[in-house]
Amino acid sequence: MASLHVKMSTVLYAVEVAGIIAFAFSGFIEARQKNMDAVGVFTVAFVTAFGGGTLRDLLLDRRPLFWVEHQEYLILVFALTLIAIPFSRHLRHAFAEKIINYADALGLGLFSITGASLAADAQMPIFVCVMMGVITGVFGGVLRDIICNEIPLVFKRGELYATCSFIGCWTYLLLEKINLTQSIALLIGIAVTFIMRSLAVRFHLTLPG
Amino acid sequence: MASLHVKMSTVLYAVEVAGIIAFAFSGFIEARQKNMDAVGVFTVAFVTAFGGGTLRDLLLDRRPLFWVEHQEYLILVFALTLIAIPFSRHLRHAFAEKIINYADALGLGLFSITGASLAADAQMPIFVCVMMGVITGVFGGVLRDIICNEIPLVFKRGELYATCSFIGCWTYLLLEKINLTQSIALLIGIAVTFIMRSLAVRFHLTLPG
Amino acid sequence: MASLHVKMSTVLYAVEVAGIIAFAFSGFIEARQKNMDAVGVFTVAFVTAFGGGTLRDLLLDRRPLFWVEHQEYLILVFALTLIAIPFSRHLRHAFAEKIINYADALGLGLFSITGASLAADAQMPIFVCVMMGVITGVFGGVLRDIICNEIPLVFKRGELYATCSFIGCWTYLLLEKINLTQSIALLIGIAVTFIMRSLAVRFHLTLPG
Repeated sequence: MASLHVKMSTVLYAVEVAGIIAFAFSGFIEARQKNMDAVGVFTVAFVTAFGGGTLRDLLLDRRPLFWVEHQEYLILVFALTLIAIPFSRHLRHAFAEKIINYADALGLGLFSITGASLAADAQMPIFVCVMMGVITGVFGGVLRDIICNEIPLVFKRGELYATCSFIGCWTYLLLEKINLTQSIALLIGIAVTFIMRSLAVRFHLTLPG
Repeated sequence: MASLHVKMSTVLYAVEVAGIIAFAFSGFIEARQKNMDAVGVFTVAFVTAFGGGTLRDLLLDRRPLFWVEHQEYLILVFALTLIAIPFSRHLRHAFAEKIINYADALGLGLFSITGASLAADAQMPIFVCVMMGVITGVFGGVLRDIICNEIPLVFKRGELYATCSFIGCWTYLLLEKINLTQSIALLIGIAVTFIMRSLAVRFHLTLPG
Repeated sequence: MASLHVKMSTVLYAVEVAGIIAFAFSGFIEARQKNMDAVGVFTVAFVTAFGGGTLRDLLLDRRPLFWVEHQEYLILVFALTLIAIPFSRHLRHAFAEKIINYADALGLGLFSITGASLAADAQMPIFVCVMMGVITGVFGGVLRDIICNEIPLVFKRGELYATCSFIGCWTYLLLEKINLTQSIALLIGIAVTFIMRSLAVRFHLTLPG
């Protein structure tokens, strides 16, 4: 039992690190496209990577905050920014846009499902868990877009966004309800969100007006 | 005593539900006017209805959050959105504007006074209670307007807005200080805020520059 | 020991009051430039003065919030607004801009270092302390600029801003590490931030692209 618990928290840790990198990367690229300086780029990467999880921790009253508990997360984003700046000088716009979209889709999946999972651990009712998942997944990207003076992806009439997170969270929570191993349920939930969002971008899937 | 306490919390509950519906409705209409899709409309309704109360609960350190404790609030807004979308297709703009104004005025009154009331219950000093009331009342609408890319009503030079909440909160808190029954003080505070805001919109009442 | 503790908290109190006045003032002037009415001006002054510290308290889980514990802070900003409005009617734009810049630089220094200091008191790791300092120092001004519909100073490609706070916080924390008296370390950290930001504005110092 104890070893399973350790394993699960290792899975969650790995998922969180991957989510941070994916979102930091999307923030990094978008800030570069806006021609910001090094501090601006780091700030946007930081806010995108930690915004959703911070709101999740505030709403669930989890302390210390995840990036306070894991100082290495901060150092990671800081180091990534320093390393990536020289490489990003000549990124073409169309290619940058693609990277942002996929990195964002991955971050969306990873953070949505950890958000739903932590809410479920805190015994919240299921509808609340779903909303916590969606908020955690969506909020970092919303902050990134507001800072970069773009209309947030999530509010644009256009390709499915929050919907993917919504369906991914339900998938994960229902799979867990029927007693599937938690780490498998997690991975399926993440995959559903990521694939659905990627398909939505690729084939311009939208909701009916 | 116990029965009085139950009664009071029932009154507060009813007021909170009414405030949620009023604000959700104003968010719903504004998002429809912006031609958002179903998820966008739900998000804006959700944020408008729960933004002020969530900030209040964060600032007062009240957990669980009110919409976590009452999962039915979430389901209510979700159901309202589903029901209302087909009906709203052909709403004329001028009529929609009117509905937004009145629903917003009602939400403003309801949330301002519950905010002030909960702060007073937590033994905060009176000036802080007033600010908590104003913040709770105003914040949901501010988020709605930011998301919909409008300058928030409260910051526009124009008809009295925060002022109505400010005066409503003082009215409520002073009435309670002189030992009026709490539920009556509450209703008077709400009425003062709502009527004052409605008159301000109707007759274009403004502060001197 | 006890007397030293009292002295330190007196120093922090004085620094906090000075920071509130400086930021409230910068908010006040910017709101006047935007031709807001009295309530708008008070709101912007309030948000600028208390935004950074409130986020700091939320992230560090400090309750009561600093402006709830010190009701006099609220009354101070309220009184300042009432007194200052008649005087500000005929402020020339260029002069107002200068005042905003210096008041903002001072507020940045004062809040950055208190943020870092409170995080250090809460035993946070040093990199987290620095980020808390930067967030506390920068956030009030970001809110002010968003409300006034300006691109936040901190995100503009231009004169050093967050960088000054960043270096000031490191200076303070390292001086404290080598056992300099805390109040002297504090004053040096504040001075470094303020002077660096003022020089950056005066001589248009920027980071390399």
